[in-house]
Amino acid sequence: MRVVVTGGGGFLGQRLARALLERGRLCDREGAERTISSLVLFDNAPVAGPLAEDRRVEVLKGDIADPRTLARLIAPGTAAVFHLAAIVSAEAESDTDQGYRVNLCGTLCLLDACRALEVPPRLVFASSLAVYGGRLPPSVGEDVALSPQSSYGTQKAIAELLLADYSRKGYVDGRALRLPTVVVRPGRPNRAASSFASSMIREPLSGKDAVCPVGKETVMALISPRRVVRALIHAYDLPESSVLDRRSLQLPGFSVSVGEIGEAVRRAGGEKAYRHILWKRDGAIERIVSSWPQRLSAERALSLGFVADKGIEEAVEAFIEDDLEAQKALS
Amino acid sequence: MRVVVTGGGGFLGQRLARALLERGRLCDREGAERTISSLVLFDNAPVAGPLAEDRRVEVLKGDIADPRTLARLIAPGTAAVFHLAAIVSAEAESDTDQGYRVNLCGTLCLLDACRALEVPPRLVFASSLAVYGGRLPPSVGEDVALSPQSSYGTQKAIAELLLADYSRKGYVDGRALRLPTVVVRPGRPNRAASSFASSMIREPLSGKDAVCPVGKETVMALISPRRVVRALIHAYDLPESSVLDRRSLQLPGFSVSVGEIGEAVRRAGGEKAYRHILWKRDGAIERIVSSWPQRLSAERALSLGFVADKGIEEAVEAFIEDDLEAQKALS
Repeated sequence: MRVVVTGGGGFLGQRLARALLERGRLCDREGAERTISSLVLFDNAPVAGPLAEDRRVEVLKGDIADPRTLARLIAPGTAAVFHLAAIVSAEAESDTDQGYRVNLCGTLCLLDACRALEVPPRLVFASSLAVYGGRLPPSVGEDVALSPQSSYGTQKAIAELLLADYSRKGYVDGRALRLPTVVVRPGRPNRAASSFASSMIREPLSGKDAVCPVGKETVMALISPRRVVRALIHAYDLPESSVLDRRSLQLPGFSVSVGEIGEAVRRAGGEKAYRHILWKRDGAIERIVSSWPQRLSAERALSLGFVADKGIEEAVEAFIEDDLEAQKALS
Repeated sequence: MRVVVTGGGGFLGQRLARALLERGRLCDREGAERTISSLVLFDNAPVAGPLAEDRRVEVLKGDIADPRTLARLIAPGTAAVFHLAAIVSAEAESDTDQGYRVNLCGTLCLLDACRALEVPPRLVFASSLAVYGGRLPPSVGEDVALSPQSSYGTQKAIAELLLADYSRKGYVDGRALRLPTVVVRPGRPNRAASSFASSMIREPLSGKDAVCPVGKETVMALISPRRVVRALIHAYDLPESSVLDRRSLQLPGFSVSVGEIGEAVRRAGGEKAYRHILWKRDGAIERIVSSWPQRLSAERALSLGFVADKGIEEAVEAFIEDDLEAQKALS
């Protein structure tokens, strides 16, 4: 079985690839388990590291909005696609052309390449909370009309619509997962407005300062990287009959105030770690963060067997187990 | 003032152009009335007829998904754009490539051409009821999550998202109108599933048979062409402040059962006309039509001054006044 991961060089793409290689098998569309003979990691940047040395792994670097590249990527026999590649929120907002080219035209190109296959592949797409916006109810789920307030959210919402239409027409068997804010992302801070939610855990536990730009009472809906990877594979495993009505699933997250995140850092790293959190409000970031859903209603995903993190403790522990050592080694 | 109408050769485009030329003026973005010096009718088919002889009218034939054509169409100084061009529902469903090329890529091209202007133009876009679908509440309005069940509806929903994002970023001042089923369309039947709703009025009143493929109890949400043209111009006239929160407006329609449409034909054309309606159920069309909203909630549009037809009588009378003579002359 040939499996493709777009954005395969990214943080989630790498973790997903590792999990798929460990598992070694995926079901086909009839539900029969099949061996993963080939795992293609596609990215616009070079993919290095130990994964690339697995004999099942093939690395392909290219432009996702180029139909010829996509015809090579989605070669005959491709049975599973995990579509994670994206221009992230801050870049999609500042570079409108690049955001639309990759996040919209790239997704359309990918879907057209899937459509060209003799047997339609199953495709799992990483969507985002950013599809929501405007006046929101206290708990936000799939029944809420989408009113994204960023180019990134707009492009994710468009990609969901494309996926649903191509699935309805039988060109692909698609499933989109709306991800809560992923915490803790390892590595360095990025320009996403949500970046602080990871930073304020990651940096203090590695002995560095981090700024929290929003008030302690601010509530966010979060998910850990471990849960995201499991959710991507679980979404793949679902029989098509369970998503026929609606291809976009709101993943469950846990809701936590920023003050409680601080307390979790204190419990994990002591006063010394806690004192690395610098509370400096930033009105611009507060406005963006307050436009996001604070609580999610994800009944359908829960009934389909998706599982939420127990809370911030679990996410912090997962970071300590999975990433803290490498994080401390980052200069 | 330079005004552009895409789909300017179509039925609604021609009526809108006539109304704009009669009016002779449109407001600019500051609300000041300005003379229409140039009205460009853009279409992929040749535009003929008396309008083309008005010295203010310029006709441009071309491909809306071609950026170079669009740069010529949205020339510097373009202040108003009415975007009506589209591949219609049945064709978008059967020709996936062409539907996405015109309805998605064409709209994106148009918006990019607007964005390239020094002064962002105001743009009115004709969207559709087809953006809704799936399980719907008894009365359907802007708060309903979009779940289109056709490629056409998907493309209209995507165009609305693009319009909202480009407007949010200040590249254009956009407004999208979700049109109910337009009745009575003059001319010949087309392949749209809704075609019968016009046919069962138009043909009997012109002395021809028409098939009604759905049960008399089927309820539809309709709007007359006169109201659509007025709504397009009214949407243009609204100050930007009134649409800042939400760029897509559900237009009000009137809800009527197909049996009541038959009775209106009887009142207007007598038993002789009524007997031209042949009641022959077609399961495939019934399934599509029953997936559409039967009743609309359009509080926001009503509060912004949009007006609904009084009912089926008004729509039938408008057809008799505006179109019946030309319709009878059609062989």
